[in-house]
Amino acid sequence: MSQAKFDELRTRLAEIADLVKTASLLGWDQHVMMPPRGAQIRAEQLATVGRIAHQKFTSAEVGNLIDELRDWGEQQEYDSLEASLVRVAARDWEKASKVPAELRAEMSRSAALANPVWVEARKNNDFKSFLPVLRKNLDLRKRYIDCFEIDDEPYDIVLDDYERDMKTKSVRRIFDYLKEHQAPLVKEVAARGQNEPHDHVFPLEQQKIFELEVVRAFGFTDDAWRLDPTVHPFASGTGIEDIRITTRYFDDHLGGLFGTMHEFGHGLYEHQIDPALERTPLARGVSLGLHESQSRMWENLVGRSLPFWRRFFPRLQELYPDTLAGYDVDRWYREVNMVEPSLIRVEADEATYNLHIILRFELEQAMLGDEFPLEQLPDEWNSRMWEYLGISVPDDTVGVLQDVHWSGGSVGYFPTYALGNLISAQLWERIVADVPDLYDGFEQGEFAPLRDWLREHLHHHGRKFTPGETLERVVGTSEIDPAPYVRYLREKLASIYGIAAPS
Amino acid sequence: MSQAKFDELRTRLAEIADLVKTASLLGWDQHVMMPPRGAQIRAEQLATVGRIAHQKFTSAEVGNLIDELRDWGEQQEYDSLEASLVRVAARDWEKASKVPAELRAEMSRSAALANPVWVEARKNNDFKSFLPVLRKNLDLRKRYIDCFEIDDEPYDIVLDDYERDMKTKSVRRIFDYLKEHQAPLVKEVAARGQNEPHDHVFPLEQQKIFELEVVRAFGFTDDAWRLDPTVHPFASGTGIEDIRITTRYFDDHLGGLFGTMHEFGHGLYEHQIDPALERTPLARGVSLGLHESQSRMWENLVGRSLPFWRRFFPRLQELYPDTLAGYDVDRWYREVNMVEPSLIRVEADEATYNLHIILRFELEQAMLGDEFPLEQLPDEWNSRMWEYLGISVPDDTVGVLQDVHWSGGSVGYFPTYALGNLISAQLWERIVADVPDLYDGFEQGEFAPLRDWLREHLHHHGRKFTPGETLERVVGTSEIDPAPYVRYLREKLASIYGIAAPS
Repeated sequence: MSQAKFDELRTRLAEIADLVKTASLLGWDQHVMMPPRGAQIRAEQLATVGRIAHQKFTSAEVGNLIDELRDWGEQQEYDSLEASLVRVAARDWEKASKVPAELRAEMSRSAALANPVWVEARKNNDFKSFLPVLRKNLDLRKRYIDCFEIDDEPYDIVLDDYERDMKTKSVRRIFDYLKEHQAPLVKEVAARGQNEPHDHVFPLEQQKIFELEVVRAFGFTDDAWRLDPTVHPFASGTGIEDIRITTRYFDDHLGGLFGTMHEFGHGLYEHQIDPALERTPLARGVSLGLHESQSRMWENLVGRSLPFWRRFFPRLQELYPDTLAGYDVDRWYREVNMVEPSLIRVEADEATYNLHIILRFELEQAMLGDEFPLEQLPDEWNSRMWEYLGISVPDDTVGVLQDVHWSGGSVGYFPTYALGNLISAQLWERIVADVPDLYDGFEQGEFAPLRDWLREHLHHHGRKFTPGETLERVVGTSEIDPAPYVRYLREKLASIYGIAAPS
Repeated sequence: MSQAKFDELRTRLAEIADLVKTASLLGWDQHVMMPPRGAQIRAEQLATVGRIAHQKFTSAEVGNLIDELRDWGEQQEYDSLEASLVRVAARDWEKASKVPAELRAEMSRSAALANPVWVEARKNNDFKSFLPVLRKNLDLRKRYIDCFEIDDEPYDIVLDDYERDMKTKSVRRIFDYLKEHQAPLVKEVAARGQNEPHDHVFPLEQQKIFELEVVRAFGFTDDAWRLDPTVHPFASGTGIEDIRITTRYFDDHLGGLFGTMHEFGHGLYEHQIDPALERTPLARGVSLGLHESQSRMWENLVGRSLPFWRRFFPRLQELYPDTLAGYDVDRWYREVNMVEPSLIRVEADEATYNLHIILRFELEQAMLGDEFPLEQLPDEWNSRMWEYLGISVPDDTVGVLQDVHWSGGSVGYFPTYALGNLISAQLWERIVADVPDLYDGFEQGEFAPLRDWLREHLHHHGRKFTPGETLERVVGTSEIDPAPYVRYLREKLASIYGIAAPS
């Protein structure tokens, strides 16, 4: 009886999962393939598919099935598909059913319409043209928050969408720790005055060859992955066997390469989920913070490590003999780890990155709280860039317009980037302990041990457990701890810049 | 009251139109972008979206709205959006509601799963591996036919899906005319013995440049169209402003170029539909035959015309100076109009093409009627190729496995290709009468007059009228008349091969 009800729930959730992945293709295509004049109708299609998925999920039928299965689910093994599916669906249902389908659809339509406006505004350094759609997105986000009961701070509501159970005040505490312990690192490095200006040329054709060689060594395969250029890189896909990462190229630095490694990390998480979870709401990463821990891990802990470059630097030098004349791997390693406050978040180094996030975290709370007129946002942005990073912002294209998120209505998303950095270091301490010859493998171009460790301990489970439960399983505590990240940073910067090593 | 009901109907149909176009993106992506291992989950997604669209359309709510609006609709201007929408929706509803949603979903899932099997089978000349999925598709198609009352022949049911109101016996009568009047042309040409063998090399890079120049002259614009390579070319898109055509390339002939012009014709039809019809079931071509009349028109009546090549041959020769050394435009014109029985339908010349269709038309009826064991299909194919075209088929890759249609479950589709050829000539006689300097324009690279004529007389209306009504509006008769096509062919071949001119 309960098994039959579970099967019915599963069938209904499978249909919804198909719609969610279909929406994900509509979104991928919109950003990667769609001719620009398709934007209007695409907004309708995204809204419709999102609305139907939402209506189907929040239907009384699904709600009743979940209610009827709650006790049965609790009697199943906690780790089992059955128990996990009922548990997670129940929690999702409770949240989703609080939001009217029409509001969801309007949020999705508004986001789709805002995207091309943002693309143009960014291109033309024209914040004014972006303002109305930003305002609309924010108003919708406030209406969204109003659907919920606020225990503590309104920002908790949006944060929880991306990082379940995370509270604004916890993030603030973590960020305060970073202000105290990470920000000084940047000053210590600056005091060494060792950064050499460099003026490189990296023609794109070789970049494309090189980054494919790198991600293929990492685990990208042509039969289950795609890599395409786009304006603002992201990872997406339609299933465990169809993973799509995107990138962009610059001809004066290799930021695109690190971006590609970053998106690979996201893609691998989705690709290594237990296939038994496909077509269920469990078939995705547990939270954005944990997702970001994977992208930052491949980008930074792997892609900016000395062992990685011992393997790949000779090849890079072969592709760019002139640009990299006079370089050895150590000099290159120092360069890709150069700490220097800069304008663009996605190009920021490991030591300054979190400061970009803290700025956005504070601005988002201020915008939701109407703490200043929205016209003033560029000024607020620019003054904080000066305060936190000592940087003067020349125009909005490289300032407040640089990120796609607000155009997509995503508020509460940014903090997960910094949390991901912190989690990546927490995980890394465990991985290095479990796989002692990890770095030797990197030097041989061997990344399977890392991939396998991640699959077994993290990816495989998909979204069966909460972020806290997941973290507890992997590192023994459910709390995000900023100390390992700061430790990792100080150690690296000690070796490169000669600042004081961790005590 | 009725207006409110109409608005509700329209909202519901808009949601369904969004789903239909979303399915169209899932399909385009499947054939053009998807990594191969995505096939399994894509089949589920296509089935789900198709099923939901079908369920929503065949719902009692939509049925009731249509019933309540029928009289009101008939009081509106026949050409109006209101009258047309109610009329077309009523007819679609009647057909669609006869087919269970689960059967629809199974057909769509089965087609999606069969596609990669067909791709492999074709690649490996392995009909046996294709047989089980073909059988499954055919069984589902028979179950589909069983959902309807058969007045005359079972094949009428599938034919009607692609060419509304068309009857098998009418097609047979038209095809008999072609056997009598078109087939002899091929023999007359063969008797002249003028074909020279040629062995060309057309490196792909220049083809890509040239075909873009051609379709851009025709009306392709980067802001609303895409052109991508695929295995079996088709036209698709997600809306009037997002048109996607696909092509493939060969390095020993320019078949890909003509294929691209063909798909352009399909794309232009969808692109020139009245924007007021967007997000309604009227926002597409009226039937496959009329659609094919557009693709064949741009491929053949434009793309294989002497005035077209007077404009474009110099450029082609510039791109291929070695390959086309010693050619002038007249020799090239004769070559692209060379009549010679050949293996591949999509590469067949204008004089033999319809014979490929007659073969498929007969085989489809035989397969639905179980007239031979399906294992025998390659033999049946090969013996008819010999009978109709005098050609011996060396393997199934270039024989029974050449076309995508049966892998997609499309039966009853092929005849519309031949009907399209015939309609294109019917339309052309009218266009040439209305636009006397049409050919002079082609020589100047001017295709707007043709585009505009087609928009005004055909494309603009979308699916407001039946194929018969549409044809009657444009050429004064609702009947497909094969005579203009045979006349056109005989005239062209008289000028090229010196066979007897039309009397």
